[in-house]
Amino acid sequence: MSKPNIVILGAGYGGMITAVRLQKTIKPSEATITLVNRNDYHYQTTWLHENAAGTLPHERTKIPINDLIDRDKVNIVLEKVVGIKPEEKKVKLEKSELSYDILVVGLGFEAATFDVPGLDKHAFTIEDLNSARLLNQNLEYHFAAYHHGKKADPSRLNIVVGGGGFTGIEFLGELANRIPALCEKFDIEKTLVRIVNIEKSPMVLSGFDPQLADYAMNSLESRGVEFITGAAITACEPDRMMYEKDGKEIEIPTRTTVWAAGVRANTLIEQSGLATNRGKVEVREDLRSPDYDDIFVIGDCATVFDESTGDAYPPTAQIAIQQAKTAARNIKSLITTGETEKFQPKILGTVASLGHNDAVGELFGSRKIRGLSAVIMKKIIDNRYLLQLGGIRLLMRKGKFNIFY
Amino acid sequence: MSKPNIVILGAGYGGMITAVRLQKTIKPSEATITLVNRNDYHYQTTWLHENAAGTLPHERTKIPINDLIDRDKVNIVLEKVVGIKPEEKKVKLEKSELSYDILVVGLGFEAATFDVPGLDKHAFTIEDLNSARLLNQNLEYHFAAYHHGKKADPSRLNIVVGGGGFTGIEFLGELANRIPALCEKFDIEKTLVRIVNIEKSPMVLSGFDPQLADYAMNSLESRGVEFITGAAITACEPDRMMYEKDGKEIEIPTRTTVWAAGVRANTLIEQSGLATNRGKVEVREDLRSPDYDDIFVIGDCATVFDESTGDAYPPTAQIAIQQAKTAARNIKSLITTGETEKFQPKILGTVASLGHNDAVGELFGSRKIRGLSAVIMKKIIDNRYLLQLGGIRLLMRKGKFNIFY
Repeated sequence: MSKPNIVILGAGYGGMITAVRLQKTIKPSEATITLVNRNDYHYQTTWLHENAAGTLPHERTKIPINDLIDRDKVNIVLEKVVGIKPEEKKVKLEKSELSYDILVVGLGFEAATFDVPGLDKHAFTIEDLNSARLLNQNLEYHFAAYHHGKKADPSRLNIVVGGGGFTGIEFLGELANRIPALCEKFDIEKTLVRIVNIEKSPMVLSGFDPQLADYAMNSLESRGVEFITGAAITACEPDRMMYEKDGKEIEIPTRTTVWAAGVRANTLIEQSGLATNRGKVEVREDLRSPDYDDIFVIGDCATVFDESTGDAYPPTAQIAIQQAKTAARNIKSLITTGETEKFQPKILGTVASLGHNDAVGELFGSRKIRGLSAVIMKKIIDNRYLLQLGGIRLLMRKGKFNIFY
Repeated sequence: MSKPNIVILGAGYGGMITAVRLQKTIKPSEATITLVNRNDYHYQTTWLHENAAGTLPHERTKIPINDLIDRDKVNIVLEKVVGIKPEEKKVKLEKSELSYDILVVGLGFEAATFDVPGLDKHAFTIEDLNSARLLNQNLEYHFAAYHHGKKADPSRLNIVVGGGGFTGIEFLGELANRIPALCEKFDIEKTLVRIVNIEKSPMVLSGFDPQLADYAMNSLESRGVEFITGAAITACEPDRMMYEKDGKEIEIPTRTTVWAAGVRANTLIEQSGLATNRGKVEVREDLRSPDYDDIFVIGDCATVFDESTGDAYPPTAQIAIQQAKTAARNIKSLITTGETEKFQPKILGTVASLGHNDAVGELFGSRKIRGLSAVIMKKIIDNRYLLQLGGIRLLMRKGKFNIFY
């Protein structure tokens, strides 16, 4: 093998950690490393709900790739990936094409709207930095517009969130905390604002411990969130949305429908013929594609099964980061000794924030935490990631240290 | 005369200064004073262009009426005025009615769109705090939305300002300064943004010294503003606007058309039968209505002629503030000795800001200033007003002291 070309697609959790690890372990004489990303920045996907609610400026979530990558060791190509051709060992970008010897696919997720009419066009999502900040601007715009014009339009103050999963609940927590300041800013009576969550199941945070899910609902209800469970969104228009409950269709006039009830792997995976399992790649033990020895797939585009339960691991930042470390080690092996290792996830726990002052979490799959201890745990997880990604310097600049805010 | 009822309509420059002066000079035993306003705050109309461009948070421009008024001396009624009945000595509010013995009308201006199709519905204005902050939110929304969706929409980055008068020019100055930060915030290439000013005359700032107007245009052009003079807006739609120049109609795709080319007195003046001259009241020497001895009209609702030139004084904050002082003295006289004095304006000069770092001005009608000295003069004028309105405490809280920003 002559000096191989390693190409990493996507600078999310998976791609970014892979790139950072490879630049430490592989010398420029051993391989050429190229990171391809649409934007010149990486961002913390797990903070997007805060940007969307306006409780954290989106600049805080954004990390310039240049701050993380040594350009003497890794090439950066700022283009959008539009296709992968595994047979030709090529990646099609918007304006150019790249050849690879080893490819790492970390192209993440996108919203899935399941053909509900109008959802793709008129609903807001929390899928990337652009969509999160657009949602925030939309909220501010309608609060600003409320007092403008001849007659105040109450639909501007109704916010509907579809989906009571992780993203939906975390967004609701931030939103509930943000409303008082937003009302103050735009001279609006707080009681006029309505925040509604529409969830298909009888309970939010499905998969989570029911006691913790119950705690989360109570915490949010106490801050004004209204839960409509056992209901499904049936349509979304620019100035209203519809949902069905108990066989009846009900309308809510609103300018802000947030869709947080469905994600899927980047559609490129399917279009490129890589997908093997519902749009994702059911990877081998060492995270390579079952069909191609030279393609690693990590993060939300990959499916890995938990041997003890038989279920697939959920698409989380935690898993993506761990996979990136394994992939980086396996690539190093491939270009040296040739032995790859098996990916063995260590699930440390999951914490869902409920605003800056409350959270719920499960540690090591059994211990339950809530309130301040869960808030602190969430910040430890966030800070640990920053430390891994960019060392002390990045942690000091972007870390979350104030446990009381 | 039994204890008279003094009612002041509007808490703008005129109404607010009148109220503050009356609470100092009239004892509760001498008269009942009532201030009527739509909002619970006063705001500096001359700062609205900064709020609209986003260079000054709108909270800075807002002053709670409670901070300025002693409620033991002045009643505050927070309602919108919907009519004046001079014959019945009554004011109709949205939900109630007030009787007066002496009325001060300081209801300000509103935008006049002269039947240009779509302007009233789709153009943004800088007429009050609500409209200014809505314009700012609209700008941010479209910059945020630029990268969202399948294809970037350049119309989101085109900003068209109709009118090169005082408000238009001051807004353009702030906007030109704001664009770099806005581009940085939303990852937009600065050169993609287009700022266009459409002005009917061959020159902006008509009425101002031509040399200063020329200086202003150069200053703004150097920061990327494009001037189209001798042109008139002919239509405005949500996603484009049209203008006519040299007999041709030209379209600019845009989501932000700002109308700064026409104002008129509050339409209530005309509807109430008070108007005597193009929607305004051509007041007597002592600022009372020619038809009613018990009604004072001040600020943008009143017309006063300059005896030396024969022209009406322009509707400025300076004139409104001076009229308020005369009106307050005349009201005190009416309820005591009965002698009113003549309003004699002292025009100290006019300064148009061109962003935080440039300005042009005429002092005492002759001396021209520009650049830093004009910037400083503008701040002196603003600070002087705050001192008059609320003393040192208000000045310290809201004043503009940093001359380099």
